[in-house]
Amino acid sequence: MSTLMPNKEQIILGIDPGIADTGYGVIRCSGTELEYIACGSIQTSKKMAMPERLVVLEKELGGIIKKYKPNKASIEELFFCKNVTTALIVGQARGVILLVLAKNHLPVSEFTPLQVKQAMTGYGKADKSQIQQMVKLVLKLKAIPRPDDAADALAIAISAANRFQDLIK
Amino acid sequence: MSTLMPNKEQIILGIDPGIADTGYGVIRCSGTELEYIACGSIQTSKKMAMPERLVVLEKELGGIIKKYKPNKASIEELFFCKNVTTALIVGQARGVILLVLAKNHLPVSEFTPLQVKQAMTGYGKADKSQIQQMVKLVLKLKAIPRPDDAADALAIAISAANRFQDLIK
Repeated sequence: MSTLMPNKEQIILGIDPGIADTGYGVIRCSGTELEYIACGSIQTSKKMAMPERLVVLEKELGGIIKKYKPNKASIEELFFCKNVTTALIVGQARGVILLVLAKNHLPVSEFTPLQVKQAMTGYGKADKSQIQQMVKLVLKLKAIPRPDDAADALAIAISAANRFQDLIK
Repeated sequence: MSTLMPNKEQIILGIDPGIADTGYGVIRCSGTELEYIACGSIQTSKKMAMPERLVVLEKELGGIIKKYKPNKASIEELFFCKNVTTALIVGQARGVILLVLAKNHLPVSEFTPLQVKQAMTGYGKADKSQIQQMVKLVLKLKAIPRPDDAADALAIAISAANRFQDLIK
């Protein structure tokens, strides 16, 4: 993909999609160096109707892209939802996220939870707290980022950086 | 809901969501009279990546709303997907549709397939071809609308009209 051609520096936006909470994490990738830029969670209230929650998600994500100007995005692939109802609801949030990314001309890579675990720790059986410790270590943070979905989003961004670095080796 | 308060006339947009094909149907509801306005299908190519397909869906649906100026929308509720993967993919399309409807300030009502069957034929065991015959009959059409998802979308619009008529009786 031409979008993955080596550049000196990339800003990567990682996203962990959800309707109540969408985690995001932004990192800078310069050669083999990774640097933390920002992370957080886009939250929508249960009191709002679904269409309005999606409007909030669209607006907030658009604001994050405008602020941090990423070159690429990575998002969790969701083929492991517990059930059909959850899949539908998370799918709705994910559809809006993919739309916003496409309208901002951001190439998107997708990672299964297993791929994130492998990228972060080299094996697929790492638990959530091990992944979070690796996020802290790799980005030289003083503490594990909070909330959980912000840490997960950073792990997804780091996975994309690793894939990018494989290409420029 | 204030959005369902009786008006003399309503233009109702019915939507049968999907990623390859999203059916739409537009009807006019004046008192107890229903009139066919338009129907069709928004199609996206399998050759395109998912984010680009969602951009096409957003754009086409926006164009339909601009053209027919509906007052309200109705959409199929999707709690009966065959499996998690299908639910996720249809969910993504549905998320973009709900976003477009909200951004156009259209109130949305949702109908399960069972509710559509009951609204159209008075009982829940009607098959697809019976529903399509009822669409033809109710809207005084010469033939059953094609493709199937356009006919389904008209049935969803008619169901919303029936609910609306219940309120103004």
